[in-house]
Amino acid sequence: MSILVDYRLAAGVNAEKHAQVIAVGQTAGTWSARFEHRRDHFEQHLATVQKIQTQNDGSSLATIRFPTANVENDIGSLLTMVFGKYSMAGTARVEDIRLPSDYGQMPGFGITGIREQLDVYERPLVMAIFKPALGLSAQDHGDIFREVAQAGIDIIKDDEILGDLEGAPTLDRLKACRDALETVSAQTGKNVLYAVNVTGRADRLLDRAHRLVEAGANALLINVLSYGYGTLEALAAAPQINVPIFAHPALAGALCAAPDHGMSYPVVLGTLMAHAGADAVLYPAHYGSLPFPQETEMSIRDRLRNRNVLPVPSAGIHPGVVPLALADYGVDVVLNAGTGIMDHPDGPGAGTTAFFDALAQAQPGESFDLEQIEAGPLRRALEKWGTP
Amino acid sequence: MSILVDYRLAAGVNAEKHAQVIAVGQTAGTWSARFEHRRDHFEQHLATVQKIQTQNDGSSLATIRFPTANVENDIGSLLTMVFGKYSMAGTARVEDIRLPSDYGQMPGFGITGIREQLDVYERPLVMAIFKPALGLSAQDHGDIFREVAQAGIDIIKDDEILGDLEGAPTLDRLKACRDALETVSAQTGKNVLYAVNVTGRADRLLDRAHRLVEAGANALLINVLSYGYGTLEALAAAPQINVPIFAHPALAGALCAAPDHGMSYPVVLGTLMAHAGADAVLYPAHYGSLPFPQETEMSIRDRLRNRNVLPVPSAGIHPGVVPLALADYGVDVVLNAGTGIMDHPDGPGAGTTAFFDALAQAQPGESFDLEQIEAGPLRRALEKWGTP
Repeated sequence: MSILVDYRLAAGVNAEKHAQVIAVGQTAGTWSARFEHRRDHFEQHLATVQKIQTQNDGSSLATIRFPTANVENDIGSLLTMVFGKYSMAGTARVEDIRLPSDYGQMPGFGITGIREQLDVYERPLVMAIFKPALGLSAQDHGDIFREVAQAGIDIIKDDEILGDLEGAPTLDRLKACRDALETVSAQTGKNVLYAVNVTGRADRLLDRAHRLVEAGANALLINVLSYGYGTLEALAAAPQINVPIFAHPALAGALCAAPDHGMSYPVVLGTLMAHAGADAVLYPAHYGSLPFPQETEMSIRDRLRNRNVLPVPSAGIHPGVVPLALADYGVDVVLNAGTGIMDHPDGPGAGTTAFFDALAQAQPGESFDLEQIEAGPLRRALEKWGTP
Repeated sequence: MSILVDYRLAAGVNAEKHAQVIAVGQTAGTWSARFEHRRDHFEQHLATVQKIQTQNDGSSLATIRFPTANVENDIGSLLTMVFGKYSMAGTARVEDIRLPSDYGQMPGFGITGIREQLDVYERPLVMAIFKPALGLSAQDHGDIFREVAQAGIDIIKDDEILGDLEGAPTLDRLKACRDALETVSAQTGKNVLYAVNVTGRADRLLDRAHRLVEAGANALLINVLSYGYGTLEALAAAPQINVPIFAHPALAGALCAAPDHGMSYPVVLGTLMAHAGADAVLYPAHYGSLPFPQETEMSIRDRLRNRNVLPVPSAGIHPGVVPLALADYGVDVVLNAGTGIMDHPDGPGAGTTAFFDALAQAQPGESFDLEQIEAGPLRRALEKWGTP
């Protein structure tokens, strides 16, 4: 089995030479006649240059084939092999990585499992984010939770910034929200997932995740790039962590935003997250508040869905974009809104209702006509955030 | 206490506006009058724009002051706060992070501790890397170890590519090298550190590190950026991991090599490694084989030494650069050579001797004059690799 990697080498770089540098330098490194007796072992580890294509902009796309025998079926060893030393060697960008389908892990829940947890099968899921990100008490979290849960929210998550801080320790937030969930669920019969942000250096993060699940957490959120794919992999592999894991893209721009360096967003937020065991992955939406090309978003969507991972386009999502999201995604998507729910003029409950009203009234791809919308939460949202 | 971060915003970016976006968006996120009763808590988490300086190239350097109350005294939460969402928001680069000196961890060993382990105090340390990186058996490792140890090497490390692979499992390599160490050490009385590459998803990596140390590992190597700073932090904090930890820079270029995006090398390989508990940090040398500016290297050197962390300039180091390294570093440095020892025309033992001969004969900053060097390992090395 092998792993194919597309490197884009900048115009002016000697592509033939650098492709060889990658194939040898990122595998066996060097060879010496002293080890002639080990030549077979050496050769089975060597990567090979599969092809080099010149692009219209003068750059070259070099495809290198790596043996899976060099890596440990995880993302950490893969990153070291693909772009460890060579990332420091010149102007190159990892545009694509094609892994064997059995490389790494499949999600424990994914699209189908998260739907089962929520008993919702035929519509997009609606997700809120606690805001303000910092400064609320645990009880404030519980109050917000109750309000959006009563309005029918499917999922709510911590802001990625919110760690285990003195003002609102993670276990206290969880407890306040669990209490609210029990109250509301007894009335409505509906489950709500709370993706609790799990943080800390590796040993603490894994330990906290176990304690959170023991204390009733029914989902986790992790800033995968801040803590390492290996932490996500460990959570995904732990039998006791029997809850869906939501992967947050914080820091992805540090790896992906440059035009000629780093790695592509579809690799970092699509391929690698999907093979590391994430159940759902957040990433910027092109109709949102972050600058993000539609084709990048759609590439991430497809890489996730190919492994049953739930796509969560995020940042700047409000009820006005629901028709666009339906056209791009159909039903297997999470509509994830922070301010787009929390800052609704009539509060987070109305913000939640506005999304469900939008789902009920939207025609995929057709912007809402404000004149046709009755007075109520959806109209109030569209008046505030517009109808793109 | 606070954390100061310098962001370079590209020419054409509205620096005043974006500095505010960072200060608010990377902390409290949003505010609503509904939480007026929590205003005090909100405000203690808000970052503030300290200054904005226009640079000669039209870019701006915005300095933002973050409260330490927002983070968990670790690198993961720091990265999320400093550059989590904003890394995806536009053209910005984190040029510097200034942390309180008690943020994170100090090295358990560092320069002084590693010198004590080796009982070598007044000269640079000499370090080899097993090559070829892949394809050698555990016994090949043991044989190489014996040869360089007999020649007086101080430290040897695995190549960063070499994980726990079938052909040479990590524990087997360790055992072969421990056997060689015992033999040689009984003859010479000298210790040699073997920085064993510890790999794997987070739970396995931590577990393997414990098992390696139990099995006699006297140093560890970790690809910090492939696995996450949190893994280094966990190793550094574990009382049972009572051996020096060598941090490898693999993947650093994916974060640092772009001119206008990502984070600077001195932050990633200097500041963050030094506050995460590394004892020694590898990074490219400007006289080496990777393109690296001297001032970047010197900035990393100083950030490491300020916290007693041992600098290990690497890649393309051979005996000919010793006079330059002495001028740049004095004695508190590791001369770390892969091919520069392993590919010596007369083998790794002679390659090691060539470094010690170079140390004995070098005048800091004055290139060797080949004509003045007697026949022997040093001269053979200089003939092969030159005298820059």
